[in-house]
Amino acid sequence: MPRLVDHGERRRTIIETTWRLIAEQGIENASMRDIAHACGYAGPGVLAHYFPNKDALLLAAYRLICDNTNDRIAASRAGKRGIGALNALCLEIIPADPVTTVEARVAVAFWQRAQTEESLRDVGRAALEHWRSEILACLAQAEVDGECAPIPDPDAVAEELLNLMIGLHVTSMLDPGALSGSRQRLLLHRSISRLGVGSPAAP
Amino acid sequence: MPRLVDHGERRRTIIETTWRLIAEQGIENASMRDIAHACGYAGPGVLAHYFPNKDALLLAAYRLICDNTNDRIAASRAGKRGIGALNALCLEIIPADPVTTVEARVAVAFWQRAQTEESLRDVGRAALEHWRSEILACLAQAEVDGECAPIPDPDAVAEELLNLMIGLHVTSMLDPGALSGSRQRLLLHRSISRLGVGSPAAP
Repeated sequence: MPRLVDHGERRRTIIETTWRLIAEQGIENASMRDIAHACGYAGPGVLAHYFPNKDALLLAAYRLICDNTNDRIAASRAGKRGIGALNALCLEIIPADPVTTVEARVAVAFWQRAQTEESLRDVGRAALEHWRSEILACLAQAEVDGECAPIPDPDAVAEELLNLMIGLHVTSMLDPGALSGSRQRLLLHRSISRLGVGSPAAP
Repeated sequence: MPRLVDHGERRRTIIETTWRLIAEQGIENASMRDIAHACGYAGPGVLAHYFPNKDALLLAAYRLICDNTNDRIAASRAGKRGIGALNALCLEIIPADPVTTVEARVAVAFWQRAQTEESLRDVGRAALEHWRSEILACLAQAEVDGECAPIPDPDAVAEELLNLMIGLHVTSMLDPGALSGSRQRLLLHRSISRLGVGSPAAP
């Protein structure tokens, strides 16, 4: 009887190995051959069966990271609303712990390539749009629940939060001493708690 | 008499050509040979005289961009202090016009490589530190001049601004429709004008 191959499992193993190599040595320095070897294959032939080239592999790696992030967000904000949900959401995006730090490294590699690849840019934009709409939903709940005063421009608030979080992907990599995990959480906390500033919530 | 070669001029031409190729086709797709051809050289030999490899060229390109940005900052904030100087500074960093957009593209390419190259990371960190200290100087002036109430945590304010500006390098590339130049300026304006919120300056 032929041995059954779990293609989904193989794809995932290849992608997770790719994350590790990107984090360790950078996407440019990791060839398809390196990734195949790290997966335990003799050559890149098996990889090509799943991913025709490095851009396709990076795209899949970035997509899985977004999916993982969004799964964690869903789990950690379960049963929460408004500000509590917003905090939970943002804490899964900023690179303030080992898991999100590896994710951020893949994201930075991905952004570089997205500059000249429309299809990659589409995926990056979709992730931003998803997070933006999640943030807006939290802000609307915070208003309804009286956690903050009416927010005159929730889109701008959402953009500020998004840009802070994306900025931290870069600054915490360039300057980990200044942007430690706890520092990142403090900056996030400041931004979110500002929503309540000057807001005499319903007594 | 042998023809004199202006090495400084040549270096600058090579770097400016590199910026253009990075913006047009990405750093990965631009080989040293491509860059040499775009400069009008038959092969990469002349380039190697100035830059031993692509990392060295990218480092020089990023350094010159930081220098150019800082020259523009110095020019545009001349004679200004406090909030006015802070505005002038930030407007030279966010990718809200064609010049700063090309600079941002080079920066994103650079950050990707800085992830695995300590020497590149040092240069990126130095740029952040320079801007951080400039922002702090502006904040201190704004306080002294009564443009805003005492700022309890100027370091955090500076980090927020820096991360917003670095985040915009990425988000405006992924989603230029949502983060147009005018939208970026509005987000910047919100962040800076918040300094004055709740601040009854000296009457």
